[in-house]
Amino acid sequence: MAKQLLGKEVNEKLNARIIAECEELKARGVNPTLAIVRCGERPDDLSYEKGATKRAEALGVAVEKFLLPEDVSKEELLRTIDAINANDQIHGVLMFRPLPKHLKADQDEICNRLDPRKDVDGMTNGSNAGVFMGKELGFAPCTPAACMEILDHYGIDCTGKKAVVLGRSLVVGKPAAMMLLAKNATVTVCHTKTRDVAAVAREADILVSAAGVLKSLTKDYVCPGQVVIDVSINWDEAKGGIAGDAVYDEVEPIVEAITPVPGGVGAVTTSVLIGHVVEAAKRAAQ
Amino acid sequence: MAKQLLGKEVNEKLNARIIAECEELKARGVNPTLAIVRCGERPDDLSYEKGATKRAEALGVAVEKFLLPEDVSKEELLRTIDAINANDQIHGVLMFRPLPKHLKADQDEICNRLDPRKDVDGMTNGSNAGVFMGKELGFAPCTPAACMEILDHYGIDCTGKKAVVLGRSLVVGKPAAMMLLAKNATVTVCHTKTRDVAAVAREADILVSAAGVLKSLTKDYVCPGQVVIDVSINWDEAKGGIAGDAVYDEVEPIVEAITPVPGGVGAVTTSVLIGHVVEAAKRAAQ
Repeated sequence: MAKQLLGKEVNEKLNARIIAECEELKARGVNPTLAIVRCGERPDDLSYEKGATKRAEALGVAVEKFLLPEDVSKEELLRTIDAINANDQIHGVLMFRPLPKHLKADQDEICNRLDPRKDVDGMTNGSNAGVFMGKELGFAPCTPAACMEILDHYGIDCTGKKAVVLGRSLVVGKPAAMMLLAKNATVTVCHTKTRDVAAVAREADILVSAAGVLKSLTKDYVCPGQVVIDVSINWDEAKGGIAGDAVYDEVEPIVEAITPVPGGVGAVTTSVLIGHVVEAAKRAAQ
Repeated sequence: MAKQLLGKEVNEKLNARIIAECEELKARGVNPTLAIVRCGERPDDLSYEKGATKRAEALGVAVEKFLLPEDVSKEELLRTIDAINANDQIHGVLMFRPLPKHLKADQDEICNRLDPRKDVDGMTNGSNAGVFMGKELGFAPCTPAACMEILDHYGIDCTGKKAVVLGRSLVVGKPAAMMLLAKNATVTVCHTKTRDVAAVAREADILVSAAGVLKSLTKDYVCPGQVVIDVSINWDEAKGGIAGDAVYDEVEPIVEAITPVPGGVGAVTTSVLIGHVVEAAKRAAQ
């Protein structure tokens, strides 16, 4: 039976660290603050906003909301971002995407208006450059950062290990690969054009699955001794709930350790986001 | 006997393409221009400058030199870069690094003052973000870009192939990995902490060696059918000249194709640089 890598266990320590850092900052007169920028009222956004707000407040991070109508003009949204950039009481920004349809063509320009130093969700070119170069320019997207928190929490040393990442998206696959490389893993990135992915995956010591395809990670992809980080959140109609890429019941008995879905990576991303806000406040206070 | 992948053959076609594009731009009133920024008179810089100037002029690209004294102040250098950014008659910039010692601490800030769109040598954060994200923000460093030109010229399709990159530097290893990924290869990045590099390398269909260690790529690293791109330029005391990573005489008889050193990747980088200037001029003219 595999060890379960549980988001809640990671969060316990991570949250305690964030609370302590928050208190330290407040003692120095810095009040770590997250700005949330939302255009319209998409249910997904509202739900994530609620969770992030609750977590932020529980950890001591203030939340300031910038709520704009769904038909907000590009100019108005840019003015909002400019004001946030100029406001040194705001340390991190979560802006929901995709932006409303009429702003879609300008989404790239709008996102990049944000100062990368406040980009706690890894959406700007500056944050991407930082992840690629290993520089503190912005922040990695929260999901791959959550994967690293899980590895760290469970003391899984990546040095010299073979890490295989399934997926090459900018929100998970590519940054996860760069972060594993920074942890001295030998990293292989697989994708839809990879031949015999299962054989490549079986070679991994650490397997990060971000395929986003329900039941794609079967027993053929794994072998004893592996650590499996199942990043994906897929809707499983049969189960009537969310599930990862792994066919959990057949993968779990084989591998050494695995993150469940739900309760694994996804459970850590909100704390990572808040942790980034605190880190941004620390950097700004230096 | 392996096929030799020769820089001069790649250059022939690449140069012809650059000349044609240059003529097309000139017919539209655009005169592709490279600015060279040099502080001091390091022999290496002078030598590269001479080669780049000659190649640029042969291909129809104008060169404008900004020659500053070795003790140039940071402010003066920044003013020079600002002037170049503002000058829409200049499309690409080659600035020699490392900068003089007194500017070393500010090198990062100085390099990033350049508009990424003119950064034909891949030194800015913007260029790095572009390589990582697969966006046209700037330009890849010339050496990994030269590797891709060689693969393209010889019709080596990367899709689904296993590519192994030895080295994870920002000037070669990491960008080469991203560019191979963009060509749909399954990419593995190895480095000094990788266990049994030779075994990983032997699995490659395309092996890019950027270790920068003379005679590090032995017969144990290769197998029949492989394409070997030897990126490194090492000084070989015994030979009294430059050599790559490969022990050429033992690797060449085994593999399918290999770039010699000299005469391989290094021979293509200058044309790639000039090609980037023309591409920058094309983008600016759009």
